[in-house]
Amino acid sequence: MSTLVQPPLFDADFQAKLALLIAWRRDVRRFRTDPVPQSLLDHLADLVQLSPSVGNSQPWRLVSVADPARRAAIRGNFERANAAALQAYRQERGALYARLKLAGLDAAPVHWAVFCDRGTTQGEGLGIATMPEMLDASVSGMVATFWLAARATGLGVGWVSILDPQAATATLEVPPHWKLIAYLCIGWPEEEHIDPELVRHRWQGRTRAGRIVLER
Amino acid sequence: MSTLVQPPLFDADFQAKLALLIAWRRDVRRFRTDPVPQSLLDHLADLVQLSPSVGNSQPWRLVSVADPARRAAIRGNFERANAAALQAYRQERGALYARLKLAGLDAAPVHWAVFCDRGTTQGEGLGIATMPEMLDASVSGMVATFWLAARATGLGVGWVSILDPQAATATLEVPPHWKLIAYLCIGWPEEEHIDPELVRHRWQGRTRAGRIVLER
Repeated sequence: MSTLVQPPLFDADFQAKLALLIAWRRDVRRFRTDPVPQSLLDHLADLVQLSPSVGNSQPWRLVSVADPARRAAIRGNFERANAAALQAYRQERGALYARLKLAGLDAAPVHWAVFCDRGTTQGEGLGIATMPEMLDASVSGMVATFWLAARATGLGVGWVSILDPQAATATLEVPPHWKLIAYLCIGWPEEEHIDPELVRHRWQGRTRAGRIVLER
Repeated sequence: MSTLVQPPLFDADFQAKLALLIAWRRDVRRFRTDPVPQSLLDHLADLVQLSPSVGNSQPWRLVSVADPARRAAIRGNFERANAAALQAYRQERGALYARLKLAGLDAAPVHWAVFCDRGTTQGEGLGIATMPEMLDASVSGMVATFWLAARATGLGVGWVSILDPQAATATLEVPPHWKLIAYLCIGWPEEEHIDPELVRHRWQGRTRAGRIVLER
């Protein structure tokens, strides 16, 4: 019985390398156009089924977007949302925003739209009576897990959220109870950096604000 | 300049061990009561600052809950929510639900309540104009990252969502614009399993439902 399998030892070397992986994961917006082997994508899609999910509901739904017309619609959606967002910034901040590259929709060979199936019955409702948002949270956790596993293989991932999610959902013709959680650009990055693009281009530095802030 | 640091190579051995880590992460509800070194918790809290966040907003806020009266209030909150949830199940399913151990609030030496600071200005609003839920999603991704990093050290983590989040927020007296994302029990697990407790106790098996389901 699988339960009795001896657990692996994750030694100090592995822990240190995992910390490096967490440090070197990046939100990638500059991709090479070379294809990604389907077997690698399948392997990663299988692996992230083991991500945590409330009630073991596995509510994530992965939609591979390859059709040129749909990709063009998503790119137009991004451009409109990005132009509207730019209007909210003034002067230097607006000029800086306009110079940022905020999505890799142009070159990334693989696009995955990741949805939460809010209507799933898998898990029998366990853990979502008082916090129904746990289904969405499970999908976000899966994306974080995927991001690390992909980066370990050298693949870059970018999470695009500058989109009208209703319009994107309509473009992709998915069931109405599926909620868009993430639109992912996936491919081989043009270059590797340890610092995020938003830090490098002085949009937002890192802080320690997220450390333990209250003792209760 | 840090950007020019040579990226590490994550070789096939590391990738295989990362897959094992993802497979052996568990939602732990059975903890030993031995203390967890504060230095280890601090290390993990620092490491997960490198998790992805929209606009580099780092919106997670970690609250360490140690006060016995507050812990008792959270336990009471769980017991009420769990009793109410039980009422939704009938016959065998209800009997099975009643036998499940769904939280480790009794023995876990460390409790962290993880909030999203929805009022943060860090990130200057980048990426949240059309999808404001990205702040919450960033916090859920941080929890998934933390879970893996903790498991690599041997620590167990359990995510408790059978709680009235408003009541828990009141118990913990945090700012009103903080949204409870996760209540985590943290400690050394009593035992290790490769299969989730909900699978082992036949609540919900794993499916392949989350693999690529649509091509668009």
